[in-house]
Amino acid sequence: MTAPSLSRRGLDAPASPIRRLTPYADQARARGVTVHHLNIGQPDLATVQPMLAAYRSYDESVVAYSPSEGYLAYRTALAEHYNGLDAARGGGPITPSQILVTVGGSEALLFAIAAACDVGDQILVAEPYYTNYRGFSHLLGVEVVPVSTHARESFAVPAERVRAAITPKTRAFIIPSPGNPTGMVLSAADLAALGEVCVQAGIFFVVDEVYREFVYPDEPPAAGAPVPRAPSVLAVPGLADHAVMIDSVSKRYSACGARVGCLVTRNAALYSACLRFAQARLSPPTVDQHAALAALRTPPADMRAMVDEYRARRDLIVAGLNAIPGVSCPTPTGAFYLITDLPVADAEDFCIFMLRDFDLGGETVMMAPAEGFYATPGLGKNQVRIAYVLGRDRLARCLEILRAGLDAYNRAAR
Amino acid sequence: MTAPSLSRRGLDAPASPIRRLTPYADQARARGVTVHHLNIGQPDLATVQPMLAAYRSYDESVVAYSPSEGYLAYRTALAEHYNGLDAARGGGPITPSQILVTVGGSEALLFAIAAACDVGDQILVAEPYYTNYRGFSHLLGVEVVPVSTHARESFAVPAERVRAAITPKTRAFIIPSPGNPTGMVLSAADLAALGEVCVQAGIFFVVDEVYREFVYPDEPPAAGAPVPRAPSVLAVPGLADHAVMIDSVSKRYSACGARVGCLVTRNAALYSACLRFAQARLSPPTVDQHAALAALRTPPADMRAMVDEYRARRDLIVAGLNAIPGVSCPTPTGAFYLITDLPVADAEDFCIFMLRDFDLGGETVMMAPAEGFYATPGLGKNQVRIAYVLGRDRLARCLEILRAGLDAYNRAAR
Repeated sequence: MTAPSLSRRGLDAPASPIRRLTPYADQARARGVTVHHLNIGQPDLATVQPMLAAYRSYDESVVAYSPSEGYLAYRTALAEHYNGLDAARGGGPITPSQILVTVGGSEALLFAIAAACDVGDQILVAEPYYTNYRGFSHLLGVEVVPVSTHARESFAVPAERVRAAITPKTRAFIIPSPGNPTGMVLSAADLAALGEVCVQAGIFFVVDEVYREFVYPDEPPAAGAPVPRAPSVLAVPGLADHAVMIDSVSKRYSACGARVGCLVTRNAALYSACLRFAQARLSPPTVDQHAALAALRTPPADMRAMVDEYRARRDLIVAGLNAIPGVSCPTPTGAFYLITDLPVADAEDFCIFMLRDFDLGGETVMMAPAEGFYATPGLGKNQVRIAYVLGRDRLARCLEILRAGLDAYNRAAR
Repeated sequence: MTAPSLSRRGLDAPASPIRRLTPYADQARARGVTVHHLNIGQPDLATVQPMLAAYRSYDESVVAYSPSEGYLAYRTALAEHYNGLDAARGGGPITPSQILVTVGGSEALLFAIAAACDVGDQILVAEPYYTNYRGFSHLLGVEVVPVSTHARESFAVPAERVRAAITPKTRAFIIPSPGNPTGMVLSAADLAALGEVCVQAGIFFVVDEVYREFVYPDEPPAAGAPVPRAPSVLAVPGLADHAVMIDSVSKRYSACGARVGCLVTRNAALYSACLRFAQARLSPPTVDQHAALAALRTPPADMRAMVDEYRARRDLIVAGLNAIPGVSCPTPTGAFYLITDLPVADAEDFCIFMLRDFDLGGETVMMAPAEGFYATPGLGKNQVRIAYVLGRDRLARCLEILRAGLDAYNRAAR
């Protein structure tokens, strides 16, 4: 009469590296210490007004299932939105039947990996990588193979390095642009070069574009100009069969808890497989879809204000980090993350120290040790990922706390 | 330069049997025919008022991620709810840390199967079965093995028949009670007997209880009495390590589009594995969780009115079906589905006929051919599943249409 045994899949399921230190944060709070969260991409900015208004004015009497592929009205509006991004250049206008609404970008990734990969197959990622790619792959019995990128190269992703990592088991190359955790942004030329590698290898090219608006070109756009956008894989010619675009309302509209994303592809066979996966889970959230439809009406000035705020935060935190002795941080050009070196041998040990043993006037910071974002053992050991999702005053305070913490940690070590 | 190939997993993904005939329904509508949907469990009844009010009064400024395991306030309220159902008898009171909030009951099932089964392992189900069990199993590379149940036995699930079907690869027995598609309800004694089989075999016992309140005992409860409930696996002693309970707000509160369910287990290892799966997808829907918390305050009289309505519908449709020459339908005692024999050789062909070739005064009905609910080839060939989720006037009209349709179909065949 012993307990039934779990699957290896269950026993070996990876814990999220951004949550592994949560027990230490709980301890810090139990000591009365305020913890500033730089470890998770939960923006502090208000959800865009049209979404909040949509929840408050929801007036259906039955919160019914939506179609498994999502509401036609929402998919139609999304198609128009993507075509406005020049998507048509990539092989004709996007149609609603090429858009599958999913439970966040997360589910879109799960479906894409499942449709491309059988058990034992591989996906290629650029490390440091978005670690949930590993979670989904693990669930599906798929191996994650890394292509290393480096801070000293501003985390660029050379096409030749990707090509060299492709094996007969590779089924897809998956990359976020703008990138999490590096903040790297692929140019249209980068997308074309990487896409060509995927076409030649006969694999899918999955681009996770959930941070599309969060780009910070050297020349900021003029006052009143619309936000620039990272190039979309949908607009790259010649990739109609290969390109899969992943999107989500989470970051763009500061609505992470509205679990609405989508998968967009011109490959009808891939779409059909993903739709059948989607039928098994019945429906994406209904009221959230109404809110997501409303989000598309967000005034451009509000989007611009949001992006300007992130840009200002990036400037503040990158300058502040590089002003700390021994810290070297490249300047990310997108998203709201960065990977920085710290003057410590073991960043995880330091992050735990910050939560367990340190505070500055009753405050400390929680960061994500970067080692968990690498698949290659040993890489990222002295790095952390920081999400700049707090206001500038708080970020400035976090920099003071971090500087003092490094000082205390390295003094204790001597 | 050919298109990349899909995985076998993608190519072979099963289509939902309740949606396979949708193109024929679309054709019917294109001909101007009104289609009454008896094929899908989407209730017509209004979502309970506290949920609708919760959406309309949502007043957070940031729709943030919830914890991956769900909000503590919601899990605490759920624990109290389950303990009120006598769950404590099954091994002590349920605590919030034994409850994982999921994206509908669907995701809870996916996680439970993944935590129990590796690729090539088996789950046991009682056929006719809830077909999405196959969808989730397919995604995970798990085999679905059926234990046959029969209309002539009122779809009872004899424990000895389950025991006989267990193999060295079996990892879990999964069953909904009240049942979809059969409407069968397991008694406390049934749960104990089936649970004992699972304990002896060292496998998990997963009970999908999303229709818990929808039971129709021979003696209806007195006016004003609370709704009776199907017994919960959580209340069965001796199953603490083995029992996994799946729940959802979808049916109980007529809120299928609010994607909130949960998995409840006292097995800490299983919980931990499912939590790590949950971390990869970040968060269940935030606003829907607020609504789901409010749903727990639904006035008992409103629940009673809902259940009384389903009972009246069941009485109407079962009597109406059995009054049609050649139809034989057992009386389901729970949920809002039934499986009925029809006087046809091929129920799918008949269902297609009803959509493609038939109408009665511009109306027809869509039903789900039952063959898709069986894993054993050949079973269910002359059966359909009907969801009685329409008002009694419409159900009565559906019976007229079905009777006329059977007449026309069998006349044409002669």
